Amino acid sequence: MKMEKHQTVIKVENETGRVKDKVRSKELRCHTAIKFHMRAFPDIRVNVIYTMVLAIGLCLVVAQFSPLLGFDPKVWCAVMAKLEKLGKPEVSHPPQLISEALFHEKINTSSIDLTHGELRLFKPHGLATHLYIEMSAYRGGPRVFSIVGLASKSLETHHNPPYACEWVSNSTGEVVQGRSHKVLPDWGYGKLYTVVVITCNFAKDVGVDGEDGELILLASYGDQYRQPERIKVLSESKGEYNGSIFNPQNFPYDYVYCGSSVYGNISPQRMREWMAYHARFFGDKAHFILHDSGGFHEDVRKVLEPWIKQGKVTLQNIRQQEIYDGYYHNQFLIVNDCLFRSRFMANWTFFFDVDEYMYVEPTTTLSQVLNENPNITQITIEQVPMAKDICVADNATRGDLKSSWGFEKLVYRKVLKPGLRYDRKYAVQARHAEAAGIHMSMNMLKGQNLYPKGDKIRYYHYHGTINKRGEVCKKFVDAGNKTALQTHDNHYHRLEETIAKMAKDVKLYELNTVGTQPFIV
Amino acid sequence: MKMEKHQTVIKVENETGRVKDKVRSKELRCHTAIKFHMRAFPDIRVNVIYTMVLAIGLCLVVAQFSPLLGFDPKVWCAVMAKLEKLGKPEVSHPPQLISEALFHEKINTSSIDLTHGELRLFKPHGLATHLYIEMSAYRGGPRVFSIVGLASKSLETHHNPPYACEWVSNSTGEVVQGRSHKVLPDWGYGKLYTVVVITCNFAKDVGVDGEDGELILLASYGDQYRQPERIKVLSESKGEYNGSIFNPQNFPYDYVYCGSSVYGNISPQRMREWMAYHARFFGDKAHFILHDSGGFHEDVRKVLEPWIKQGKVTLQNIRQQEIYDGYYHNQFLIVNDCLFRSRFMANWTFFFDVDEYMYVEPTTTLSQVLNENPNITQITIEQVPMAKDICVADNATRGDLKSSWGFEKLVYRKVLKPGLRYDRKYAVQARHAEAAGIHMSMNMLKGQNLYPKGDKIRYYHYHGTINKRGEVCKKFVDAGNKTALQTHDNHYHRLEETIAKMAKDVKLYELNTVGTQPFIV
Repeated sequence: MKMEKHQTVIKVENETGRVKDKVRSKELRCHTAIKFHMRAFPDIRVNVIYTMVLAIGLCLVVAQFSPLLGFDPKVWCAVMAKLEKLGKPEVSHPPQLISEALFHEKINTSSIDLTHGELRLFKPHGLATHLYIEMSAYRGGPRVFSIVGLASKSLETHHNPPYACEWVSNSTGEVVQGRSHKVLPDWGYGKLYTVVVITCNFAKDVGVDGEDGELILLASYGDQYRQPERIKVLSESKGEYNGSIFNPQNFPYDYVYCGSSVYGNISPQRMREWMAYHARFFGDKAHFILHDSGGFHEDVRKVLEPWIKQGKVTLQNIRQQEIYDGYYHNQFLIVNDCLFRSRFMANWTFFFDVDEYMYVEPTTTLSQVLNENPNITQITIEQVPMAKDICVADNATRGDLKSSWGFEKLVYRKVLKPGLRYDRKYAVQARHAEAAGIHMSMNMLKGQNLYPKGDKIRYYHYHGTINKRGEVCKKFVDAGNKTALQTHDNHYHRLEETIAKMAKDVKLYELNTVGTQPFIV
Repeated sequence: MKMEKHQTVIKVENETGRVKDKVRSKELRCHTAIKFHMRAFPDIRVNVIYTMVLAIGLCLVVAQFSPLLGFDPKVWCAVMAKLEKLGKPEVSHPPQLISEALFHEKINTSSIDLTHGELRLFKPHGLATHLYIEMSAYRGGPRVFSIVGLASKSLETHHNPPYACEWVSNSTGEVVQGRSHKVLPDWGYGKLYTVVVITCNFAKDVGVDGEDGELILLASYGDQYRQPERIKVLSESKGEYNGSIFNPQNFPYDYVYCGSSVYGNISPQRMREWMAYHARFFGDKAHFILHDSGGFHEDVRKVLEPWIKQGKVTLQNIRQQEIYDGYYHNQFLIVNDCLFRSRFMANWTFFFDVDEYMYVEPTTTLSQVLNENPNITQITIEQVPMAKDICVADNATRGDLKSSWGFEKLVYRKVLKPGLRYDRKYAVQARHAEAAGIHMSMNMLKGQNLYPKGDKIRYYHYHGTINKRGEVCKKFVDAGNKTALQTHDNHYHRLEETIAKMAKDVKLYELNTVGTQPFIV
């Protein structure tokens, strides 16, 4: 667009660049204003030769006819009218007309006066973060719900927007306002997104009459220009509400295992071993919820299939969350979803990884450990870090090395370094937890936490083995020397055969429960 | 949706909540999938009674006819087909069908396998941050351009996405790739958005033949799922290119003032005083670019109007940027835009605020200070902090107190506290700066920086006065005692009349230049 000097207000004749867009001109291309909103019609562009009176008149006429298309010619009119005003006395001009087409979002700019001065436009492109990513919502009782999702990290951090929730009865139309309490359980690790857990409490029971109803979450932007997003997070159809599920007497299982996001080139054999061990460990009244964020490829699914068919394992495909960058495959989001999902399945929910082996001293039982003190609603479990590649060399081992199970041959534990904090994993009574973490819940609603030493219950952590697609043994200790202190990888190690000694029983259990399994390392 | 036990894969009969969405059911409402994309038709909802074969067939037929509406029934088909597969052997299923309607963005999810396991969907809502907010682009020479905008802070921080630029000749269709260099000038202050300055260099001159051409910026997401946004940031029409503007001999001014974003309840009188003082200070060959982010209300504009009419001042309305939360009314964005805008207007561009008064000792001149050493391309200027409310009480002052100008009666400077760093402001040769900051440019391309003491050049900073809509004097010092050290507000103060003594000349200059001005405090 040529800048005609006698028309400009600014006497800077030598200016280049985009400033020319903002001065009066005989030829004004408005395809920019149109382009933004015509998503459904990408190939239609309109070039309009501008004459002041005719064009504005045309605008106003067209504006009456085309709101449905989403094309807002009022935008164009507003821009053109603005340009007209350069050099003229201020004309009162409704400023909210430069709204939807330009901004790609519903935004109220009526408080912004765009009628004076040299107007500069700031044009948005693309979408980096949504306001809210909806995952799930669960009823926690007659008058309480938990909502699990992700929020834009920078918006949450800087605007601390309020959340609101309400229950809408579809039969009566009644809307009941809830009181929402927000928990951010991911310790600030989130990158583009952060996990948000909203507990929505009502002053009275809602939907317990079995009528058709919905839980609505209102997620806000925390600024004066944007209205909250109204999100239907849960619906209960007629007759669906069943209050008896909240009664612990009715829980179908004793234990639920909630796995974190599994990613990477997982060894099917390692997964098979873990599954057989823990199916036996937790017993018949247990259920496993596994989450595939990419790790459960076809060969891994082969060894899980029999357990899934038996109804012992649910494999959740959570791969779609990969497109939203939270923290490590959104693991904090996943464990919170699983927490609420498991709430009325069992008294205790376990959170640990698929390279960690839970263990209870044979002098007691898992049930005794967990239920000894009824006040305890969370137990954190001590870790025994295991070496990922030290094995004992003896004739028996060498021969069957390849076909031995991982935990059968990895028999060295790392000697704990004094003063170092080692991670723990945990079990909670999920109905008493408001939110979950990876190593513990910081949001218990009731009861006390126990942080026992590992004498009765502990887990053996074979870190670095789960995605090892080959022989794990790299260093061999002579059988005659096996009880001696070993130095390897900047650590002291001691012989630790506790889990290895269980291999025979686990293999037998597997054979009796699911039959023969393929051996795919 | 009722959960029918014999159809489910999961044997958890007592589960509540959204898990039910994912199991096979006789009645499936798909208005959710439809709702997301039917922006132009908010009131059309489709309830469809599902029978397996008929519905999928209907889907496929409708899918051929309705892409233009934006409604993608393939989404619905994909979801239903997925639900069908529960319990059946895996069917190869093109997974990218759950794309556009669900995601509200162009996203390539073809690498994500959604065909196995229990599918969990993560549904986006709202828009928290765009990828890029386009402000401006300027030519810097025959083969270089500068592009100024905002990027999503969290995405820039965590993904460090690449930027690319190219020149497209509309007449020949030739596309020339540029080399882009990114500068983030806002010191990490950005909240939802951070300022990005891209310098785009070409290996050869582009568009210098005066042909029709465009500069394209490609802003990326830095992930495997999203394609870059292609943004036309600058266009030059036939005959527009004029290489002579780059020659300093042709610069129309000696000095350009670039003001930061002005916000708040600004006192018109304070602004009037500043304007008159600096119009006189910088002389005839100077231009002022002011930026209104809300501070230049009607009364302030009254006192600026005569200067605007004379062509000495440009008032840019930047209020629209308020909807994008960068840092303090996007001041870093604004000063960078102004830097490039001023590049070929004058040899020197000044960056300081409208409550700061530039001063040069009468033994020298501004030109001498700046141009003494031709190697110097940036000069940082020392601050003299002035008390905002201490005045001298004498008969003359008292009588005219109300009508005296601010800098006429505020005659105390703060005694500098040892060891404290005081802010500076600065002047640069804009054509040698790649980007700008508030207190200096960290991105000079040529020459050296000078950080002189304040003996020849300094500025007096009347912090806390510019949005004082009333009498500034609060504490009065007896005339007889005025040279004594004053203690006030946890600071020592000394008499400082340098600027005050210039009031008479400034008022006269104002009268001669723009005539009488209203007195609006």
